[in-house]
Amino acid sequence: MERQLELWFTENQTEDVALGLRIQGILHQEQTKYQNLAVLDTVAYGRMLVLDGAVQTTERDEFAYHEMITHVPLQAHPRPRRIAIVGGGDGGAVREILKDPAVEKVVLIEIDEAVTRVAQRFLPSIASGLGDPRVEIRFEDGIQHMQEHKSAYDVVIIDSTDPVGPASGLFQRPFYQSVYEALADDGIMVAQTESPFLEKEILQSAVEAVRAVFPRVYVYLGVVPTYPSGLWSFTLGSKKYDPTVPQRRPLSGPTRYYNFDLHTAAFTLPNFVRDLIAG
Amino acid sequence: MERQLELWFTENQTEDVALGLRIQGILHQEQTKYQNLAVLDTVAYGRMLVLDGAVQTTERDEFAYHEMITHVPLQAHPRPRRIAIVGGGDGGAVREILKDPAVEKVVLIEIDEAVTRVAQRFLPSIASGLGDPRVEIRFEDGIQHMQEHKSAYDVVIIDSTDPVGPASGLFQRPFYQSVYEALADDGIMVAQTESPFLEKEILQSAVEAVRAVFPRVYVYLGVVPTYPSGLWSFTLGSKKYDPTVPQRRPLSGPTRYYNFDLHTAAFTLPNFVRDLIAG
Repeated sequence: MERQLELWFTENQTEDVALGLRIQGILHQEQTKYQNLAVLDTVAYGRMLVLDGAVQTTERDEFAYHEMITHVPLQAHPRPRRIAIVGGGDGGAVREILKDPAVEKVVLIEIDEAVTRVAQRFLPSIASGLGDPRVEIRFEDGIQHMQEHKSAYDVVIIDSTDPVGPASGLFQRPFYQSVYEALADDGIMVAQTESPFLEKEILQSAVEAVRAVFPRVYVYLGVVPTYPSGLWSFTLGSKKYDPTVPQRRPLSGPTRYYNFDLHTAAFTLPNFVRDLIAG
Repeated sequence: MERQLELWFTENQTEDVALGLRIQGILHQEQTKYQNLAVLDTVAYGRMLVLDGAVQTTERDEFAYHEMITHVPLQAHPRPRRIAIVGGGDGGAVREILKDPAVEKVVLIEIDEAVTRVAQRFLPSIASGLGDPRVEIRFEDGIQHMQEHKSAYDVVIIDSTDPVGPASGLFQRPFYQSVYEALADDGIMVAQTESPFLEKEILQSAVEAVRAVFPRVYVYLGVVPTYPSGLWSFTLGSKKYDPTVPQRRPLSGPTRYYNFDLHTAAFTLPNFVRDLIAG
């Protein structure tokens, strides 16, 4: 009787909930200056980037996350020419942003150079836009970058890891204040703000902090199967525009999750989420 | 050094994806005439009903599923007086249906009496409506019941297990044909049709089968964290009414997921789901 080696990756999404994914191999593993980084080959979701044991992105479901964190704030803005991404070193957000014909410049501010290097090598379908001439990659601290730029961006996207380790400062009011100042007078920011089912305190405190800085604050939702609970929140701060109505600029490439009707529908919240963030 | 026993329940949602939940105890376990039935006490999601190893419902996230499988078809109908549920022996769908003031009669057709008996004992917050005078519980085969009733119901809800074991016949065209005939001339049916991410063939074949029978067929989505991928589909067949616009009848009790705006938004599909079911 032949028996094959059975290998599973397990993420403890909380102390009491785990996601298990069968893997076919470990493609890469290293301890970077900031975190443990691995690329695993899963059967169900293709190649997967893991940071400090937490799933960051997989080839098969990353489209949902990357399309929703980019096209919603961009289509909410009539002329999003200059875009900054804090985090997002895998390149998925960059790839989506480049589909918007209004975009002239994308600045990717990733603290950990290893993330980008590994994504370019092992996740080419995600990192595909990083060589585009409109893209500038800066391996530096996003907090400091925002503090040092004023009125420099039309849209800032905070595509961070969970608020532990290198990303903890990205979920706090002083950072949102510097993002506000780094934006033009009609600028928009969006941040990934975790699961309303499993990490409701993170969402609540992020919304409260963004409300202390931006005049208009909205939460919208998407579904990412490999993230805890599947339901994922994004918190958007706008200086001027109502973000719930997309500008409907045609994109230069297809999307698999985002469309203009879904843009508006994503802001329609289940009661328990609406109640969580009630001001 | 004191070390506590660490117990986890694991559901292999597919061959390659698993959900793990830490448990505090096994409250009940039995082999019924139809399936293996257990009630586990989970730390993250409270008490949980498990059939043949698959999560059916948990105290903490059942509201999302039960509200969406009931209020959407009911609010799509101007006078839903007579309702049938096929499956749903835990009582969660009954509890929600009873919040609609238009409802006069709910017939629950559950093949496995043990499910209802165990829910009444261990899941009282879910089974709470089963003693209501408007409710008739019949422990019999839903397929046969539909074949034997003509023009008897305004809404039929197919709240089944996965299409293996006792529920396999519920995902097929002959059953949908008998449901069509069991409905009044302006009747509506809805069925749970699995995850568009992980079980797309089930959704596709169910939609195809319902389209062969009903003149108007729609898919809508909800999020249930303990179900595979979190994203869950419901396939609705309507003889007359456009189900995307709710009647906005005030309910007699609160909902934690459903609201009238979300009713319409739930029919707005991500591109990959829209493409899956393109006729």
